[in-house]
Parts: sequence; C-alpha cells; structure tokens
Amino acid sequence: MTRPDAPPGAVRQGSLREWNLALLLDRIAAADRPPSRAELAADTGLTRATVSAVVEDLLAGRLVAEAEPTPRAGAGRPSRGLVLATDGPAGLGLEVNVDYLAACVVDLAGRVRHHTVHRADLRPVSPAEALARLADLAARARADVAREGLTLAGAALAVPGLVDAAGLVRLAPNLGWRNVPVPALLAEGTPLTTHVDGVPPLVVDNEANLAALGELHAGPAGRASFLHVSGEVGVGAGIVLDGSLFRGTRGWSGEIGHLPVRPDGPTCRCGGRGCLETYAGQEAILAAAGLAGADLPADTATTRLAELAEAGDPAVRRALAEAGTALGVAVAGVVNLLDLDTVVLGGGYAPLAPWLRPPVLAEISRRVLTAAWSPVTVRPATLGATAAAVGGAGSVVRRILAHPAGWLARPS
Amino acid sequence: MTRPDAPPGAVRQGSLREWNLALLLDRIAAADRPPSRAELAADTGLTRATVSAVVEDLLAGRLVAEAEPTPRAGAGRPSRGLVLATDGPAGLGLEVNVDYLAACVVDLAGRVRHHTVHRADLRPVSPAEALARLADLAARARADVAREGLTLAGAALAVPGLVDAAGLVRLAPNLGWRNVPVPALLAEGTPLTTHVDGVPPLVVDNEANLAALGELHAGPAGRASFLHVSGEVGVGAGIVLDGSLFRGTRGWSGEIGHLPVRPDGPTCRCGGRGCLETYAGQEAILAAAGLAGADLPADTATTRLAELAEAGDPAVRRALAEAGTALGVAVAGVVNLLDLDTVVLGGGYAPLAPWLRPPVLAEISRRVLTAAWSPVTVRPATLGATAAAVGGAGSVVRRILAHPAGWLARPS
Repeated sequence: MTRPDAPPGAVRQGSLREWNLALLLDRIAAADRPPSRAELAADTGLTRATVSAVVEDLLAGRLVAEAEPTPRAGAGRPSRGLVLATDGPAGLGLEVNVDYLAACVVDLAGRVRHHTVHRADLRPVSPAEALARLADLAARARADVAREGLTLAGAALAVPGLVDAAGLVRLAPNLGWRNVPVPALLAEGTPLTTHVDGVPPLVVDNEANLAALGELHAGPAGRASFLHVSGEVGVGAGIVLDGSLFRGTRGWSGEIGHLPVRPDGPTCRCGGRGCLETYAGQEAILAAAGLAGADLPADTATTRLAELAEAGDPAVRRALAEAGTALGVAVAGVVNLLDLDTVVLGGGYAPLAPWLRPPVLAEISRRVLTAAWSPVTVRPATLGATAAAVGGAGSVVRRILAHPAGWLARPS
Repeated sequence: MTRPDAPPGAVRQGSLREWNLALLLDRIAAADRPPSRAELAADTGLTRATVSAVVEDLLAGRLVAEAEPTPRAGAGRPSRGLVLATDGPAGLGLEVNVDYLAACVVDLAGRVRHHTVHRADLRPVSPAEALARLADLAARARADVAREGLTLAGAALAVPGLVDAAGLVRLAPNLGWRNVPVPALLAEGTPLTTHVDGVPPLVVDNEANLAALGELHAGPAGRASFLHVSGEVGVGAGIVLDGSLFRGTRGWSGEIGHLPVRPDGPTCRCGGRGCLETYAGQEAILAAAGLAGADLPADTATTRLAELAEAGDPAVRRALAEAGTALGVAVAGVVNLLDLDTVVLGGGYAPLAPWLRPPVLAEISRRVLTAAWSPVTVRPATLGATAAAVGGAGSVVRRILAHPAGWLARPS
C-alpha cells in the first residue's frame, strides 16, 4: 500500500481521526472496484473496528456510499463495497473568457453534474457586469445540483490573465482587464458556496493552469509531465511536471502566447512584437483564413474552421498550417528548454488538432535536439474547451478529499 | 531546528548511527560559527553522550575538525567549536569544452583547492584522445591534493552536450561528439577516485547544469530560483527551481541555445534554423565583430571582446548589442514561460555582462507580461568560466556530506 501524502490540515491539527478519514477516503477513491471494509483494513493495516467506525463517519457525512451488493461465492452475507458519494459535497468550476462564461459542477466521484456555457463577447462589458452575469450562472448551477442533494463546498474561477495570490486579476489583455478585484466583485451579494473549513470559498486562477489540471485529472492517475497549450483568442500554457502544475516564482508561468516567434513581427496586445498569439491566436487564424470580422463566438469559429478544413478549403488549410508552424516553433523551444515528451493541444486547438499537429511535429523534429532518440507525442486534449471549468471544479473536489474532516465539521 | 532531508542511503539502511552522522554533519556545515558539542546537542535534541560519540567518529574519519579554541567568558575550559575538515574527502570536478579542459578539486568546506585549465581546440581531437588528456589532468589534480591530505571520493564531468543516465554523450554538436561512452574512455586505465559507498565514482552531466549548480552553491543557502545561461561556443542553460536543478523528463532540459530567435534565420549546427546560438554563441559574436578566424581560445576571445568593448570599439559594441538582443528575446520567452525573477549570465557571458545586460533587460521589459509589477534581475555569474567544474566538484562534496557513513566505511 502506498500512503497518500499527509493532508496538510490533518497533520497540522495532529488528529489521528482526521488522518484515518483522509486515508480511507483516499483508498476508496483510488480503488479499481468498490472495496469492502475488510479489504480496507487489510490495505491500510488499521483494525476492522477502526475501519468500521471511520466508514460510519464517512457514510453519515455523505462522503462515501455503499455500492450495490455483489453476490459472493460461498456462504455469508454479500459483501458491500464502498464508493465515493455522488450526493454530498461538490466543486464549482467557473470560467470567464473573451467570448463566453461557463459554470460547471463536479461531484466527489469526478463526474460533471452540471455544465452551462453562456456565449457573449465580453470585451465591451465591464468586469463588474461580466462577474455579475457569472454569479447568476453560479447561482443557477447551485440550485440545479441542490435538487440532486449536492452541496457546493468551494469554487475555482478561470480567467485568461495574470492573477495574484489574493485573486486580483493584474492583467487580462484580451479581455482588457487590469487590476480587477475578482473575489470582491463576484461574491458581492451572497457567497457562491457553503463554508467548509480547509476548502477556500473561491480560488481565482489562470485559465491555462486550470485547463492543464483538468487534463491531468482526466488522464490516468500518475506522475504525468506535459505541456498543455490552450488556444483561444489568447494562447496560454499549463506546465505539468511529475503530476503537479508548475506555477513559477509568482504563479505567472505558462505565458507561451507571448513567446516571440518572429521578434520583429506584428505588434501584440501585450506590447511586444511577433508573439505566438499574433500568429496562432484565434483572431490571427481567422484573419489568415479570410474570415476576419465574421464575428463568430469562439467555439463556433473553431467549429467553422474545422468544417472548412475538413472540406478542403485551401485558405483555411493554409491558415492552419501557418498557425501550426508558429505553434511548432514555440513548442519546440519549450521542449528544448524543459525536455517534456508530451504536448497536449487544448481549448480551441483540440478540434483543430488534425491540421495543427503535422506542422507542430515537423517543427519539433527540425528543432528539438533530442527528437531523434525520444519522439515527442502531440495529441489533442481529452476535455477541450470545457477543460478549465472542469479542472477548477476538480481542484475543489481534490481539496475536499484531502481534508474530509473540514466537510464533516461544517455548521449545519 | 530544521532537520535536513533524510540522506537516502542512511534511511535505506535504516541505521540510527548513519542518520545521526549525517544530521550532525549537516548542522556543522550549516552553522554560522563553529558549534560546540553542547550547542549541537541543544540544536538536535540528541543527548550530550550521543553527540560526543558521533563527533568522535566524524573527527576520526576526517570529516570534521576542531576549530581553534576561542576564549570563553567565565570559568571552565575554552569551548572548542567544530568545522568541516579540509584534509579529508574531496570532490573532483572535470570539464571538457570546445576549447579547453579543466580539473578542479573542492574540499568538504567548499573551498577550491586545485584548479587547472588546459587550453586547446578539441574539435579536431578524437573523444578518446581528449578524454586521455583529461585523465592526465585528473591524475595531476589527485596527486597535488594528496600532498595536503585530501582524498578524491568521487568525480563529476561537465560536457557541452546531451548525456544519458549511464554517462553516454548522445550528442555534443559543437565538439562533434556522437554516442561517446565517456566513463569507459575516461577511466580506462586507473580509476580517478577512491571508491566510497554512496558516492558515484564518475557522474557525467551537461555543462550548463553543473555550471548552474556551481552558481547555486556559490550563493546564499536557500531555495533560490533562477535561469543560468552559459555562453561559450554553444549556449546552454541550467534551470534552478526552489534550490534544485530542474532536469526535465529525460535529463535534457536547458537547451536554450536552440530556442529559435528567427525561425528562418541562419542554419544551426543542430540542424534547425535561427537558433539563439547562431546569434549569441561565441563564434557568432566574433564574426559580427569582424574577429572571425582570429582563432582565439574561448576565454582569450572573451577577454579580447571585453577589452575592445571597454575601449569603445564600435563593431564590437554593435556585435554585443545584437547578441544581447537575441539573448533577450530568448530569455524573455523563458521568463514568460517559467516566471523566474532572476537571470544569471554565466560562462563567457559573465565578463561581457556590462554590454549584454542592457539589451537583455530591454527585451525583457518589452516582452515579459509581468515585468511591470515585478522586475527581473539580470546579473553576471559569481563563478564565470570555472562554474561547471566547481559545480561538479561541489555536487560530489554534497553527496559525501549527505552520506558520511559511506566515507567512514571505505576500505583503507
């Protein structure tokens, strides 16, 4: 048995009960099939009596549930396995992007139980107004899942920009936001979530970071390392090293959209020149394809580009080849620098992967010193456009699982 | 008191004595002034008797020594503080570069006790011949420090190329090496070092990695994060995150020299085009300054460039400004990606820093999204050209300090 990392709260408070709650919850979450109490005792080295008492707490607190009994060979009662509850605490994931708002709810078992996307060009809208609309989406999500017995224990909000530790958005260039105090504006009226000790009510994070976390959790458990590139109006990256998101010194890593592809190229919204975004951002691709000004919402634009490319439209094919080459130049630089063996094309790039992947691979094989010995995998994201909100909600769920005592001790 | 990370060997063997040896050695190494046995007992929570016994072992094994006694206020014997020994085990650092070989020895206290540089253009020389010459340098270093009572307990060799875990140099493009089995060739005759359990006799590593480690150990203790760029004929980087070298999935991180500055630029030795090395490698700078073909050894070339720049030579100034701009474009990309707040100009860049730094800073402020809120420091390396060999020798010393029992148990 591998013990999970000690949940910080549990160790700080030094309580054996908290440790045992987190340990058994971890074993139930990690099991291939619902484990019985006896199997949990064998797995953890705890006594059967301790396991039974802890499981009673987890059942009473709606953190786990008993699976349907499976008939057992031989005599005796059928064994009842334990599974994560799907009617207890849940995480709320939110996203503000340039042309949509999204809210989703993920339950303890990792299932998406609610997902709403509200499409609108948010550039002309004030941050306060955009966040008020998002609070409405959140309230609807909360009411919707409450009917199924779920309680929102925390929220994570994805923003396409630089966020500091207090949730202040320093800069979101494509939204035109500067120094926006998101938590104050978003939770101005009623709080979005129920207070649970150990789970922050609202974490604000960079969209590309949460999308990479979504992709990480959607994949097989383990210590994956990959670069997740999200292509929207802006282009961002999440760097996952050994199963953890790498955030950088101040939490501002991953700004691949501002890697210079041609140092004297077109001026970028960031003030630099020739940034990747000016070649492979969604607006650059649409302009190169002769579709600028079509004013399509992001996912429609992506769908339209994919349809036209599929149909063989030469201008669209050329635009995607050029964007893929620029993306490949930047990605090859990242691979040379960080020695990663997997690149995930996420967000709006996921549906365009059939056309972006070949030029990205071509640049990698031209420019990455080590490509000859160990090929780099380039693949579309599993989650695509929903990754950031799902990743945010999932990050809340992981906090609950790591600190179940906080949930059990919540005021009723 | 902060306990050091458990030394892997000690924990594996589960011996309390090994743990106590490593613990006290760590406290002696970390102390501001030589601690007494009583201070060590208070610091670690061990009994005075245990401390005395362990210190006896450390003294007998020449891992620590007693400092000169300092007179103490009040009655009693003067207290005798303990320091790391400077006549016991030491680390050997070696380097093969394009135009020099180097060997250095660092003692337990971190002092450089021997340093030889042998200048020669090694490109026309076979790997076997180059390594034979290096083995000679190593033998001379060993004999030299043996006279001062030092024993070489392990070696680390820096190579400007991609090295695998077994020490095979897959590719060193500027040396023209491919698949060179360095350990076999280098230690063909007699082994370079005395066998010590827990200390590999020879580690082969990338030059930029070892140079970054050298810089890390030369700075104040702590969890520093920085990008160390070594400018030689090739350009490499070592990425230090939170006080540790980041090596990437296969140990091949840091190839900043092959970050594309202009994707359609000059062809690079790596096969790519417009790599940083083609703009800011030493040969590119010499060519731009009108000094190509002068065929100066690396540090002479650097010294010459610095002298001419100091004297105001316009062609040299222009060449350095252009190289600095290209370096700044690449470094800005890295800072956008990894959110590092310190960039160290190392190797041949260190003496050229007065002229490279301004254009690097200009590109950072133009291109790094977050530069407005948190300025990036760009500074010359402390160690400069010797960093890789010193860093390699230092890495051996750190292994000895983490695993003193291996040294104490060596066959005499």
